[in-house]
Amino acid sequence: MSTRPVNPVTGLDFTPAVGDMPFTPLQREWLAKAHALGRDKFAARAAQWDQEASFPFANYDDLREQGFLKLCVPTEFGGAGADFPTYMMVAAEIGRFCGATALTWNMHICSTMWTGVLADGIAMSDEQRAEHAARRQIHFARIVNEGKLYAQPFSEGTAAAAGRAPFGTTARQVVRDGQRGWLINGKKIWASLSGAADYYGVLCTEDKGDQHPDARDTLYISVPATAEGFSISGEWDPLGMRGTVSRNLTFKDVFVSDDEQLMPRGIYFKGAQTWPAMFNTLAPTYLGLANAVYDFTVQYLRGEVPGEPPIKRRQFPTKQITVAQMRLQLESMKSLFTRAIFEAKPNPSKDEKLRLYAAHYAVMEGANDLARLGIRTCGGQSMLKHLPLERLYRDSRCGALMLPWTAELILDRMGRETLYEPGEKDD
Amino acid sequence: MSTRPVNPVTGLDFTPAVGDMPFTPLQREWLAKAHALGRDKFAARAAQWDQEASFPFANYDDLREQGFLKLCVPTEFGGAGADFPTYMMVAAEIGRFCGATALTWNMHICSTMWTGVLADGIAMSDEQRAEHAARRQIHFARIVNEGKLYAQPFSEGTAAAAGRAPFGTTARQVVRDGQRGWLINGKKIWASLSGAADYYGVLCTEDKGDQHPDARDTLYISVPATAEGFSISGEWDPLGMRGTVSRNLTFKDVFVSDDEQLMPRGIYFKGAQTWPAMFNTLAPTYLGLANAVYDFTVQYLRGEVPGEPPIKRRQFPTKQITVAQMRLQLESMKSLFTRAIFEAKPNPSKDEKLRLYAAHYAVMEGANDLARLGIRTCGGQSMLKHLPLERLYRDSRCGALMLPWTAELILDRMGRETLYEPGEKDD
Amino acid sequence: MSTRPVNPVTGLDFTPAVGDMPFTPLQREWLAKAHALGRDKFAARAAQWDQEASFPFANYDDLREQGFLKLCVPTEFGGAGADFPTYMMVAAEIGRFCGATALTWNMHICSTMWTGVLADGIAMSDEQRAEHAARRQIHFARIVNEGKLYAQPFSEGTAAAAGRAPFGTTARQVVRDGQRGWLINGKKIWASLSGAADYYGVLCTEDKGDQHPDARDTLYISVPATAEGFSISGEWDPLGMRGTVSRNLTFKDVFVSDDEQLMPRGIYFKGAQTWPAMFNTLAPTYLGLANAVYDFTVQYLRGEVPGEPPIKRRQFPTKQITVAQMRLQLESMKSLFTRAIFEAKPNPSKDEKLRLYAAHYAVMEGANDLARLGIRTCGGQSMLKHLPLERLYRDSRCGALMLPWTAELILDRMGRETLYEPGEKDD
Amino acid sequence: MSTRPVNPVTGLDFTPAVGDMPFTPLQREWLAKAHALGRDKFAARAAQWDQEASFPFANYDDLREQGFLKLCVPTEFGGAGADFPTYMMVAAEIGRFCGATALTWNMHICSTMWTGVLADGIAMSDEQRAEHAARRQIHFARIVNEGKLYAQPFSEGTAAAAGRAPFGTTARQVVRDGQRGWLINGKKIWASLSGAADYYGVLCTEDKGDQHPDARDTLYISVPATAEGFSISGEWDPLGMRGTVSRNLTFKDVFVSDDEQLMPRGIYFKGAQTWPAMFNTLAPTYLGLANAVYDFTVQYLRGEVPGEPPIKRRQFPTKQITVAQMRLQLESMKSLFTRAIFEAKPNPSKDEKLRLYAAHYAVMEGANDLARLGIRTCGGQSMLKHLPLERLYRDSRCGALMLPWTAELILDRMGRETLYEPGEKDD
Repeated sequence: MSTRPVNPVTGLDFTPAVGDMPFTPLQREWLAKAHALGRDKFAARAAQWDQEASFPFANYDDLREQGFLKLCVPTEFGGAGADFPTYMMVAAEIGRFCGATALTWNMHICSTMWTGVLADGIAMSDEQRAEHAARRQIHFARIVNEGKLYAQPFSEGTAAAAGRAPFGTTARQVVRDGQRGWLINGKKIWASLSGAADYYGVLCTEDKGDQHPDARDTLYISVPATAEGFSISGEWDPLGMRGTVSRNLTFKDVFVSDDEQLMPRGIYFKGAQTWPAMFNTLAPTYLGLANAVYDFTVQYLRGEVPGEPPIKRRQFPTKQITVAQMRLQLESMKSLFTRAIFEAKPNPSKDEKLRLYAAHYAVMEGANDLARLGIRTCGGQSMLKHLPLERLYRDSRCGALMLPWTAELILDRMGRETLYEPGEKDD
Repeated sequence: MSTRPVNPVTGLDFTPAVGDMPFTPLQREWLAKAHALGRDKFAARAAQWDQEASFPFANYDDLREQGFLKLCVPTEFGGAGADFPTYMMVAAEIGRFCGATALTWNMHICSTMWTGVLADGIAMSDEQRAEHAARRQIHFARIVNEGKLYAQPFSEGTAAAAGRAPFGTTARQVVRDGQRGWLINGKKIWASLSGAADYYGVLCTEDKGDQHPDARDTLYISVPATAEGFSISGEWDPLGMRGTVSRNLTFKDVFVSDDEQLMPRGIYFKGAQTWPAMFNTLAPTYLGLANAVYDFTVQYLRGEVPGEPPIKRRQFPTKQITVAQMRLQLESMKSLFTRAIFEAKPNPSKDEKLRLYAAHYAVMEGANDLARLGIRTCGGQSMLKHLPLERLYRDSRCGALMLPWTAELILDRMGRETLYEPGEKDD
Repeated sequence: MSTRPVNPVTGLDFTPAVGDMPFTPLQREWLAKAHALGRDKFAARAAQWDQEASFPFANYDDLREQGFLKLCVPTEFGGAGADFPTYMMVAAEIGRFCGATALTWNMHICSTMWTGVLADGIAMSDEQRAEHAARRQIHFARIVNEGKLYAQPFSEGTAAAAGRAPFGTTARQVVRDGQRGWLINGKKIWASLSGAADYYGVLCTEDKGDQHPDARDTLYISVPATAEGFSISGEWDPLGMRGTVSRNLTFKDVFVSDDEQLMPRGIYFKGAQTWPAMFNTLAPTYLGLANAVYDFTVQYLRGEVPGEPPIKRRQFPTKQITVAQMRLQLESMKSLFTRAIFEAKPNPSKDEKLRLYAAHYAVMEGANDLARLGIRTCGGQSMLKHLPLERLYRDSRCGALMLPWTAELILDRMGRETLYEPGEKDD
Repeated sequence: MSTRPVNPVTGLDFTPAVGDMPFTPLQREWLAKAHALGRDKFAARAAQWDQEASFPFANYDDLREQGFLKLCVPTEFGGAGADFPTYMMVAAEIGRFCGATALTWNMHICSTMWTGVLADGIAMSDEQRAEHAARRQIHFARIVNEGKLYAQPFSEGTAAAAGRAPFGTTARQVVRDGQRGWLINGKKIWASLSGAADYYGVLCTEDKGDQHPDARDTLYISVPATAEGFSISGEWDPLGMRGTVSRNLTFKDVFVSDDEQLMPRGIYFKGAQTWPAMFNTLAPTYLGLANAVYDFTVQYLRGEVPGEPPIKRRQFPTKQITVAQMRLQLESMKSLFTRAIFEAKPNPSKDEKLRLYAAHYAVMEGANDLARLGIRTCGGQSMLKHLPLERLYRDSRCGALMLPWTAELILDRMGRETLYEPGEKDD
């Protein structure tokens, strides 16, 4: 039980990863739950998933039990009905204690946000709307009633994940045993939640026979882990974020029924164009991580890390200035992130879109900046595995590499989009 | 007349220096006025004040006429009643077109905010409250009815401006010709608005005779430009922000009546402790400046600067990436600044206070970062005085040097305050 | 007379801009002369050239008198016979005290190095060699015997200065009054030494009538300041390096005799391909400048600037760390520069060429980094014109913009040349 | 067998880690041997030591066989007689292929340099000189004739390793069984080569009974791995440089004979004051590592990594510019390092000493800068363990933490030593 005073502005007895600000009751409730869960359960377990490169099943039992799997399922379907900014700040709080849990949970949540709040904001025909309403009910019911977990495999090792080509995984419409459905073929790599998810929400391109594949025909289809023809392969021994267990998925003539379409045909493509903020959902993990690095560094220099000798190192000016630099950068990350999540919307203005890119870049690169400074100022002990800093350092490097918004692709986009209006070209 | 479309979120046909966001009607009105005034009048005049190191009197005629001098005077005293964040974003808009005007206008506005919104939020005895109510009426009436301009001289070349010592300028209580008043003695340096202000709101320490000067006895007293014993001296030929005309003020047995006290005795000191955001009012000028650098750079690389050959340079990847970096940093500055101005309040939480420092630092150093990158990517032409970039480069270096929150002092404060709770000491 | 001890390694009683190292007697002699001249004469005059944007004639009287104009003229022609590295380190010493003098002197020296040591290292036919021997005698004699000053105008506002197109200034072979010679037409911009040089060594393209201009036909021809058809125009009011007086030159049917060819036809082009280090000769000015910034900062923080109050500011940890950062960067600049000048040669290896670029970039950007840090840590006083720092800050921004090796073009070249071997292309 | 052409300047068919430059025959020979050994043997084994955190015994068999253990043993004792700069550049070449091997080999080599070239340059009495001559003969013979390996444990977790306190490990002079010798007690941590060395050259303080320990009484004594009372303990599971096996050593009444003194009493202390460059011997490992990162990145972007698909990624401007930045920094590191090793000497000038610090800092921090950029630009694949980049990224963070010259302590030293002359104090 915390004995820290409650801040009257936030209603919380801790400063959340996004910083103090006024929160809605829903935000306050979930931030408090996430913080407690992370601090009391996830933090201590994080070393294990990292060491074994194993999936954090124990964390997911807690998440399921406390309702986190249905956080973004609309209330009319039995969920908590959290909106985009609420999810993002809660995710940052989870990321503060276990990066692999936050990253994988994000995949699951995205499968509920795409089908939920996002779909609500994308134009559909009445027919599409009706179709979607019926299908997502099935999907949400699995999560709400059965606690099922969804993955969202994306990368294929081609330009598709960067949004520059259609996905190579295909779905062909078939009728089997009188049932209309899809035959899925292809391969996904870096598929987080491999072997842990109950369903894999696969992005694929409709195979229309002789035609050329077209990104506008992207389908978003759920494949049960038990489906015939579905298999998982490959080693998983990476630098960081090892608990995501991001192995390869192979789909060989996998049949699924029509009801497994998570969004009507063409709607995912429209959504990705319309809702760029969706690709920012990888960022909260790293904002949380940056907070973890900062929190640990302050605690360590103050001689207050449990189990460590109570040696104060805070009195050295070089360390004070390093911590000041870390805090400067952390505040930049927090403010960009917070502004971006609150202004996230369909069809943002150019100013808002560029800020969204900036927020993503600042968080992804900033988490790594902080981690390396944290190790440098805490010194040799922090390279050892009984303290969390070396893991955070390894995990921190992963964010800037994640498609579709790698640090380099954001620089490209920002360079081009600042200097060219849409449609402009040079001769 | 602008033909650009109005953004439905902002209600404006331009993106203000703080970026797109929903504004109140009052904010929208003043942002639009400031932007139009800056763009149509101030921008073209800026080179002149810079060249001559002369005060922007013409700009002040416009500001006075359009009501900007009373922007922060409470409505009950005939002002526009703008609050802190509204002022800060309007100031950034002015700073976008003329740094010297924004910096000097800030001095005037502060003299109305200290006595207005700030004073309202500081605890006073009933007697003090009554005294202050009577006196500020005189003060506000001069501004509202007569368009008078107030300076706020601060620096003395000692540790006082950094907040670490009492001011050396003194005020001794006297009775002269039956009138109670103060005899002021001392010297101020870097006094912006020298020779332009009608009143100089001087921070000074009460001279109680044999006692030691004490910062808690700081008085804030208005000295008319015409007062006997008051004089202005010294050269003014600096690197940048040359239109501020920040010369030396000497007070030699200057007598002013009791009514010239702008705040009751002791209240300024309390206010400075309580309202740290007040020292952030130097920042909007530099946020505006950073926008100006960015705006010009984009315009120049697109070949759209009026009067320049329409040569496009935007197609070079190195320039695209430089502009991306500039935008990244600008967005960080905008988000930190915006968050800080909206959460400004008496007695902020530790998290809010550290963010305030971070916002100040990020803006002051960031403006300079952008200016040097802007020159580098625009190339040789931008070193010449017919284009604004070289002036912006010179102006941009001044912000980080301004007391009490120089870049170095912020690093010091942040280093200490992150690692030590108030009152903590090492043995 | 210095009372500082002589360092046994350097044989000098000061640390030169390149740092302590063993010097040859010739290097030691000229470093000592340059340092004394700069310290005792140039430093005090620098403010004047800057303020007036006037040419440092007084400095040139000293340079001429002390033999600096003939430093790189081979000894067999009466010069001091300094080689490339010797010149570069002496130039850095001059740049330490007056940037505009160093930059313009470089133009003059280059006209003796191109025709001297460089030409000796470039393959020529016997006929060309003989022709060149005869002509450079005339040229060197003017310098050695008459103290004439040569400019080397380069830029034309096109891609030529970046080395990507032939020069637009043309020379057509003609016979006039029985004398073979050249008719020169065109325009040069940013021409340092405008109005101060006795001869302008113009880079131009041979006009062969109907053929297309070809960079391989670049000629290097000397035009006397008194030639008919030659004129100087344009304003000169830039941010920094104001004493270079870099105005526009117009050549309208300017006739010069064949003997004014400073190098045989085609040799300049070959030289530029062969001797990339020649373009590094703009760097020593800025290495000197960086030293000046550092020297002043240390002196100021120690309270030892003549004429200033002896206030020590060195005890603040933030200032100590800033000075440490400045020194770190200065040492990087010095070591890269020194290594590059000693390994300068025709046809350097890929490793050496990339290092040369790196040295140039590091010095040009580094000078600006140091200048802005110097101002930040010295504080407000350093913005005023009675101290040299604000001028150094302005001057420091110019180096990275200077063609053909701007900071951006070096990034381009290094990016390409690290990843592609000569001749390699992607499909 | 290499088919690359031999560079006429270097006499080598590869560019060594310090860059192209003229080498002595000895340097050339050992650089070539080190490069071949590293490239053909060490590179492939590096993953194993890292994964197992095991000592690279196989590499040491090769080093021993090829004479690397006696590289710095003077020729009169049967060694190769390499001087300081030669060792440093060869060490960088080893570090290019296996960081853990380079770091541990450095410990061994230091035990031969302290007793060899360094001792030769430190003033001793005739008696001390004679004593030292006799003892080092024993010591060198073990290495030359028996291939013995020496460790050099240093850290104790106190201020001693930073040079600010005497070592806590003590040696008391005793006579045992008629033999004069020392009784050693204490504990060393971070002791590289734990369990692999044949001898541990321990720095300890003479225990003179009731007196206070004094750093001037530092002894440097060799303890055989087989000595009674010597034991190794502790886990070893760090972030990087895992093959160093740096566990804890405990000395409990360990008796060694007088002949195990590696330097006469008091000489180590004098040497450490006199020869600051000795502490720079940790740097070549990281310069090598930085080269490895750069080499791999270029190879990967060119699609030339053996075993990987030949996909070219070099054509993207963002990647080109990143590689340019990496090369810029690598060249800075190489030039600083090279200059520092060649000017290393007893009692360097202030300029040389500050440059030495700068070189150390630049290499240690730069290696990490490069590693993180390398991963960012190579992308997701480079996080996996079948490629070396993620290991290099982990290893790269260790250098800045290594005592006595951590990155922070160098900033402290440089800040102080730039602004204060020896002995200067403020009141």
